[in-house]
Amino acid sequence: MKEKTIDYFLRATWMAVSKFYTEEAGKKESTMATGFALISIDPEEGAPSTSLGPKMGMEATSLSRTLKNMEDKGLIERRPNPADGRGVLIYLTPFGKEMREFSKGVVLRFDEYVKQQIPEEDLKTFKRVANSIMDMVQSKSIYNSDK
Amino acid sequence: MKEKTIDYFLRATWMAVSKFYTEEAGKKESTMATGFALISIDPEEGAPSTSLGPKMGMEATSLSRTLKNMEDKGLIERRPNPADGRGVLIYLTPFGKEMREFSKGVVLRFDEYVKQQIPEEDLKTFKRVANSIMDMVQSKSIYNSDK
Repeated sequence: MKEKTIDYFLRATWMAVSKFYTEEAGKKESTMATGFALISIDPEEGAPSTSLGPKMGMEATSLSRTLKNMEDKGLIERRPNPADGRGVLIYLTPFGKEMREFSKGVVLRFDEYVKQQIPEEDLKTFKRVANSIMDMVQSKSIYNSDK
Repeated sequence: MKEKTIDYFLRATWMAVSKFYTEEAGKKESTMATGFALISIDPEEGAPSTSLGPKMGMEATSLSRTLKNMEDKGLIERRPNPADGRGVLIYLTPFGKEMREFSKGVVLRFDEYVKQQIPEEDLKTFKRVANSIMDMVQSKSIYNSDK
């Protein structure tokens, strides 16, 4: 069998974790994107809507669909940003805060479980490799590797 | 600063690689999903359309949108499957084969670059950890970790 490429491991592992998150979110009639958005919004200070896209790595159109859906479900409220006339701040409702705790619980449960199962030294190496790969893309060094 | 969770590394690294793949595909007016589909179709034997979703980890609706788009661009052709009256086989056109080579080139270039930059021992550990995480989700052991 041919050796699998690194991107296969990255993609397949993230897809497996997404599957877990999607199924857990489904138990509360929620979605993974909603869970990430809830976690990205400070429960007390709220968040400028423009900060969420970059934080979550979502495109503007998908994000605005997710936020619309969250508003309809009563998880968030939009209020004008006093510091920016055209800006919008997003706040969690009490139900939003409750669901944020649920989402954080799922993420932490996953993290704890992985830490129980995998030796600390291996996880350190894993994070170091992940950081190096992110650096290759962010520094654009990979783009110049084709000569 | 709080320690980042493992899911953060998985998600952020895969997102960084997707960004690279999306930008490279964009140079040929293509997309990452098209590239993965091209790679998943055997250039000689074609592929049953039903085999692609599970292989690529895509939902049926996104996949059928991608395939429609690929057909419109002249990358693939659909033919009835002689072995299955209701089934459809997907074949690459000559242009599809050419673009498949391009896509494979991008994936291999990424892989080679990572292998040049990161010690082999670390990559082995990385793959082992990735496999363990996939196993946790596939074996459903993670689902039962909440007691």
